[in-house]
Amino acid sequence: MSKPQFARAFAPASIGNLGVGFDMLGLAIAGAGDRVDARRTEASDVTVAEVRGLDGEIHPYLPNEATENTASIAAAAFWQMHGDEGSIEITVHKGVPLQSGMGSSAASAVAAVVAANALLDKPLAMAQLLPHAIEGEKFASKGLHADNVAPSLLGGMIFCPPALLPDTYSIAVPKGISSVLLHPELQVNTAQSRKGLARGYSMEQWITQQSYFGGFIAACEQNDTDLLARCLHDVIIEPQRAAAVPCFDGVKNSAMNAGAMGCSLSGSGPSIFALCADNSAVKIATAMEQECRNHGYECQSWVSAMGSPGAVVERRE
Amino acid sequence: MSKPQFARAFAPASIGNLGVGFDMLGLAIAGAGDRVDARRTEASDVTVAEVRGLDGEIHPYLPNEATENTASIAAAAFWQMHGDEGSIEITVHKGVPLQSGMGSSAASAVAAVVAANALLDKPLAMAQLLPHAIEGEKFASKGLHADNVAPSLLGGMIFCPPALLPDTYSIAVPKGISSVLLHPELQVNTAQSRKGLARGYSMEQWITQQSYFGGFIAACEQNDTDLLARCLHDVIIEPQRAAAVPCFDGVKNSAMNAGAMGCSLSGSGPSIFALCADNSAVKIATAMEQECRNHGYECQSWVSAMGSPGAVVERRE
Repeated sequence: MSKPQFARAFAPASIGNLGVGFDMLGLAIAGAGDRVDARRTEASDVTVAEVRGLDGEIHPYLPNEATENTASIAAAAFWQMHGDEGSIEITVHKGVPLQSGMGSSAASAVAAVVAANALLDKPLAMAQLLPHAIEGEKFASKGLHADNVAPSLLGGMIFCPPALLPDTYSIAVPKGISSVLLHPELQVNTAQSRKGLARGYSMEQWITQQSYFGGFIAACEQNDTDLLARCLHDVIIEPQRAAAVPCFDGVKNSAMNAGAMGCSLSGSGPSIFALCADNSAVKIATAMEQECRNHGYECQSWVSAMGSPGAVVERRE
Repeated sequence: MSKPQFARAFAPASIGNLGVGFDMLGLAIAGAGDRVDARRTEASDVTVAEVRGLDGEIHPYLPNEATENTASIAAAAFWQMHGDEGSIEITVHKGVPLQSGMGSSAASAVAAVVAANALLDKPLAMAQLLPHAIEGEKFASKGLHADNVAPSLLGGMIFCPPALLPDTYSIAVPKGISSVLLHPELQVNTAQSRKGLARGYSMEQWITQQSYFGGFIAACEQNDTDLLARCLHDVIIEPQRAAAVPCFDGVKNSAMNAGAMGCSLSGSGPSIFALCADNSAVKIATAMEQECRNHGYECQSWVSAMGSPGAVVERRE
């Protein structure tokens, strides 16, 4: 039997940090993501055929130089170590808005690696792909963190602190909880946003945030939604980043007033997420969108069950 | 039926912080603890009849002024709110060495409240006693933390950060894990030790420690002893406090070499704890004791299953 010549993979967007776990926690969402097609070539290097947007048109901003595109960088890292012969050409179909705080670069990197992996006779297990996807993400965000890559690859909620990489750990997802992710149409550059963060923190800040994080993990594992709501706070990063998202305070208030358990920035923003009971998710999404538009920003929102799946191979032939 | 006139309660020593969770995690141990007798009186205030040591003699250091003894302060806080009539006289039998980092003041406060509670016709549930036990501990350690009081009262491993008090949360205990607690005969004053801690920490320190804490909680809940061993580290407090315990580095090395999963200071020290597989606990305790004596300190150690029980009423009549 001949080897697969073509594969298409989808990788979802994700909520990095999840408010409570800066650089170490991420959650996959449903409904938004990137697709990557990988096709075998006889070339010696990975190449990018095209990058297209949701409208089907050539993407106006993303490069198709293979050394500057997160998808091809990740695919090349994978193929260099595991490819059997020749190389691959990839086509990226961007579904995640750029610089949205929704893990756009991670989704591209993950989809590329998953598609490349599907070209192998005996593809590796998903978890083994993580280091290669991280390579692409590292190029985009200039740091070693996996809080978008890991959930996009593996689905659900993933604990993935730099100190434990490349190992990551799935955290149980409480029953009956949904995420709402709102994307206001403004952009925040993750790498620059990171540079703006304070370098030093008080003992009180550290202890408070660590309490919330530990409590959040315990709450999820114990299916204790009351504790989850008490712990879904970010007292360190959110206050520093919220100013870059003028609608943040209003949207957060609208989410909380509509019954959310907690609300914070997704990644470095501008996207804003809330966690809530499944049956109030649509109401909360509507309230968040309305408030966002009141501030003059067009927006879009996605409602997902908290345990949404990670990347999948959609075609392999 | 007449009300109980006398009650005796036992409250165990405990490992505060548990290395990974400064001010927010504690573990009950077995074999060491304080006993408190409570007897009804017709006086208007709680009084202390005697404080005796393990040898049965009057304790040379602890005060029996009721306003300066953690046991009577805690008992008074309880009786003021829940007592039915008259007051109580308490006798403290100290089993936990003072300023040992083993939760000595917490054990006295807990035993006192549990004994006083047992004098009631309808005693309150154990968890309801926590705020009163904390009152006694607050006097001794000059801060609001429950990482000794909560495990001493409730047993097992308790997540009890200041941000969530008076609520506390039991964390599942992995199977087959024991604690070894070594007490070298030197004293560290908790309140002073706390004052000596740095007030500011870098983002890297905070993120690393939070990773370890979150991972430790996940490891316990998921019964993942490999992850537990990877996460049982304190990169913030231990390095600052170890210098006050000259045998610490040696004892820690001896524990790790003997197969411990991790080893750190108990509370503010000088006691040192290790977590390990049940079947290596005695070997590790022996190695730690030997190393401690090599440094010129007499010592004692206790081996406990990780889920040891909390306070109990031993007599009620």
